[in-house]
Amino acid sequence: MSIETQIKAVTCTQGPEGRLSIGLIDQRLLPAQEVWLHLTDPEQVAQAITDMIVRGAPAIGVTAAYGLAQAMDLSEQAGQPLRSVWPSWRERFASTRPTAVNLFWAIDRIEGLVSSGATASEIFVEAQLIHAEDQAACQAMGLHGAPLLPQGGGVLHHCNTGALATGGIGTALGVLRAAVATGKEIHVWVDETRPYLQGSRLTAWECRQDNIPATLITDNMAGWLMQQGKIQAAIVGSDRIAANGDVANKIGTYAVAVLCKHHGIPMYVAAPTSTIDLDCASGAEIPIEERTEREVTHIGGWAPAELLTPLQVAPIDIDVTNPAFDVTPAELVSAIITEQGVARHPYREQLAQMVAASAKQTQGKS
Amino acid sequence: MSIETQIKAVTCTQGPEGRLSIGLIDQRLLPAQEVWLHLTDPEQVAQAITDMIVRGAPAIGVTAAYGLAQAMDLSEQAGQPLRSVWPSWRERFASTRPTAVNLFWAIDRIEGLVSSGATASEIFVEAQLIHAEDQAACQAMGLHGAPLLPQGGGVLHHCNTGALATGGIGTALGVLRAAVATGKEIHVWVDETRPYLQGSRLTAWECRQDNIPATLITDNMAGWLMQQGKIQAAIVGSDRIAANGDVANKIGTYAVAVLCKHHGIPMYVAAPTSTIDLDCASGAEIPIEERTEREVTHIGGWAPAELLTPLQVAPIDIDVTNPAFDVTPAELVSAIITEQGVARHPYREQLAQMVAASAKQTQGKS
Repeated sequence: MSIETQIKAVTCTQGPEGRLSIGLIDQRLLPAQEVWLHLTDPEQVAQAITDMIVRGAPAIGVTAAYGLAQAMDLSEQAGQPLRSVWPSWRERFASTRPTAVNLFWAIDRIEGLVSSGATASEIFVEAQLIHAEDQAACQAMGLHGAPLLPQGGGVLHHCNTGALATGGIGTALGVLRAAVATGKEIHVWVDETRPYLQGSRLTAWECRQDNIPATLITDNMAGWLMQQGKIQAAIVGSDRIAANGDVANKIGTYAVAVLCKHHGIPMYVAAPTSTIDLDCASGAEIPIEERTEREVTHIGGWAPAELLTPLQVAPIDIDVTNPAFDVTPAELVSAIITEQGVARHPYREQLAQMVAASAKQTQGKS
Repeated sequence: MSIETQIKAVTCTQGPEGRLSIGLIDQRLLPAQEVWLHLTDPEQVAQAITDMIVRGAPAIGVTAAYGLAQAMDLSEQAGQPLRSVWPSWRERFASTRPTAVNLFWAIDRIEGLVSSGATASEIFVEAQLIHAEDQAACQAMGLHGAPLLPQGGGVLHHCNTGALATGGIGTALGVLRAAVATGKEIHVWVDETRPYLQGSRLTAWECRQDNIPATLITDNMAGWLMQQGKIQAAIVGSDRIAANGDVANKIGTYAVAVLCKHHGIPMYVAAPTSTIDLDCASGAEIPIEERTEREVTHIGGWAPAELLTPLQVAPIDIDVTNPAFDVTPAELVSAIITEQGVARHPYREQLAQMVAASAKQTQGKS
């Protein structure tokens, strides 16, 4: 079976003159406005990743792949050797968001083709393949993960991990979509996910779009709902998984994991194997992006200033810390759901096998 | 020694014609604007409590006492017998905020005087006494609590419990003020406290006003900071403490307590004995106020609509739950600091003794 969603975070189409156009729904304006951007300049695509017009590790990877394909296409049309222009484009896209490993994974795959002398057209096909693989991975994660979720229970979800964050139905939210599609009567508790409010702005919007039963809460309510017996499982995505199963994900994930442990509730992570970084031995090696203080002191900064005046909610001279991610130790993770199946603690060997299996499949397709 | 603050949440002064004027800093406009209201109509005072112009359990109690004194004063001037007008004013103030036990405690004390045939002038003196007792209780909590805090460590604080929430230096924030005043080099981690943002709007403002070293965080960052070793204790206030030591406080307190337990960090509660409700056997009996969905879906609703347009951060048709409080079981509370001293688990007997000691002192003064 195929799990459906009407939402697409990223598209890439070839215009009448062969020019690539990258379509992105401007996630900074959701849920109040649904605005699609059509970008024909790879510099704009890179900036869109930095500006969080598109966010979510897998969607960033797909977008970067298309952006690099577009850059190579324009370079080829301008008669520039791809290998000579590649390093600066690689650098441009690598600098957009430092924590998302999918970004580097996508860049490396495109680089492999550039190095081997591929044409821009072949590179575009590779980008499409990266996108299709991500869609298929989401479907597979959904089908592997849905059986883990309770029948008739509440499931806590943190951040946004859905169609807006991936090239398909999502990772954690994809598992929730699959659970609903396979007849589980689950209720999703949507953490709003301060400071950037990906939960209230994006996940709540996705749930309304696709009729997933859901209730929005502030992040600090999840513990109380667990205490009240309203939550039977939690599921999140990941921005990077270390070889030992430590999970870097949106700030607040670690607190969810501790709350789950205290209440004897399973805590699941759903992420494609492209998120697994075997070069990273443990979570201690994962760089944590520190973002601007204004995300905490002013709410609304996700949208362009000409469209939305951020609301001041703190004294302007107060000291702020704003780590974008935290690391949840593998011991607190009940299972990691990838497109290859379900891994359980201890993770090291299973994750390595999953990555190897995925690499084998990718090689088979390329 | 006396611990100082320049901030006053509530004042009550007698004008040249003997009319009582209640001064409140409009907490809905902080930190962007500092506006003082001077209310001469007790109906406005009751509405100010409902509208959260003034909030924080002890400050509500003091404000209600002054509001009732004002109502009795106006009734007396109008030649109305106080006992005949009392029931409707009692009802008006009792309906303003249902969870804060200090409110009912203040109402009961004023009622005792009305029943015994006191004059409006005597009732005003009683309201002033309630205020002075709260100031003294804050000082005592500060001096009892400060020695518990670490020398040179980080202390997590949730919601607002300071001069804005009480008639004095505060409860939990009063303890932090006392720790700073007595030379402890603590650093305060200020939880922003969604949805109403009392932490970022009020506590951060108080810290800046009184030069308390502080860093603002979103609620979901506290767990990660504990994991990183940056927090050595947490301290919160309370809206109601049951006879067994279960603590009702701002939503998110329970999650802080669970995070503290997981990390082996002490979790302190500072509250005057007026917060202890011996008629309430356990937290299960404490009514939890459910507030409007708009506090979660729209940010900025704390201010009057003509001054601030709330910012939409969620689809308008998403289901929301918004409990204002949660209950932390006594087992997760390392100590309860009152003006009478420090109680430790098991709490029942010590809390009863503290309430009895406090009642004895009050009787001695009246």
